[in-house]
Amino acid sequence: MTDAPPPTFPSPGSTAEVEQGTVLSPKFDADGLVGAIVTDAASGEVLMFAWMNAEALRLSLDTGVAHFWSRSRQRIWRKGEESGNTLAIAEARVDCDQDAVWLKVTVAGAGVACHTGARSCFYRTIVSEAGAPARLARTAS
Amino acid sequence: MTDAPPPTFPSPGSTAEVEQGTVLSPKFDADGLVGAIVTDAASGEVLMFAWMNAEALRLSLDTGVAHFWSRSRQRIWRKGEESGNTLAIAEARVDCDQDAVWLKVTVAGAGVACHTGARSCFYRTIVSEAGAPARLARTAS
Repeated sequence: MTDAPPPTFPSPGSTAEVEQGTVLSPKFDADGLVGAIVTDAASGEVLMFAWMNAEALRLSLDTGVAHFWSRSRQRIWRKGEESGNTLAIAEARVDCDQDAVWLKVTVAGAGVACHTGARSCFYRTIVSEAGAPARLARTAS
Repeated sequence: MTDAPPPTFPSPGSTAEVEQGTVLSPKFDADGLVGAIVTDAASGEVLMFAWMNAEALRLSLDTGVAHFWSRSRQRIWRKGEESGNTLAIAEARVDCDQDAVWLKVTVAGAGVACHTGARSCFYRTIVSEAGAPARLARTAS
């Protein structure tokens, strides 16, 4: 990385501006993060959920490849930088209050998004029956 | 509400148990929350992103209707309790490290999930061009 100034976005304005405006002004939380939902651009399946700080969001938008902020490693993380399963962004959306983004992606490499080797991180369904502890069942996809 | 004990889930065990096990043991964050991604069970469209504490997750699983934790109002929130646009849960999934859930839902009432009146909270695409500030474009859906 260079010693360029940190990436910034305009601060959120009024509720009307945030919800109806045409300016991307993310509402970063106390840790400087917004949530990022990642879906498969072709199937629509939810692949993963991760976090972005301003730099990760800027890098993602500028390069078209998904970058996140790793809370455990406290650093920028280009998804797939080790596995090769990078995420090419087909479309990025932001929600009404601009504290979450939705990326529609195409997974490169082996085509799996989860570090466990599953295509999606959401590979288990919650099976709930009244009076019994919820259990998890592996899904087919 | 009654004075029943607060809902609990088993504490997360080893990484292998969390990632490969059949026990729902959510990894709540420092605020006691997990993220909840909501998609339309029919179209797959991402409708909204919200938060759940243990009680909201328990109520959602027990009733089949989505409940969240409102961070702004600091209370349990049955989505649609005022608008009528409640969310019937067709399927619930949890991700690899059990700090996010994915709900596939059918929206009741007017069929819109966003408080702005949009079907989805993600009604704007981020349009990014090198060297220019990102702007937002309203989507058709």
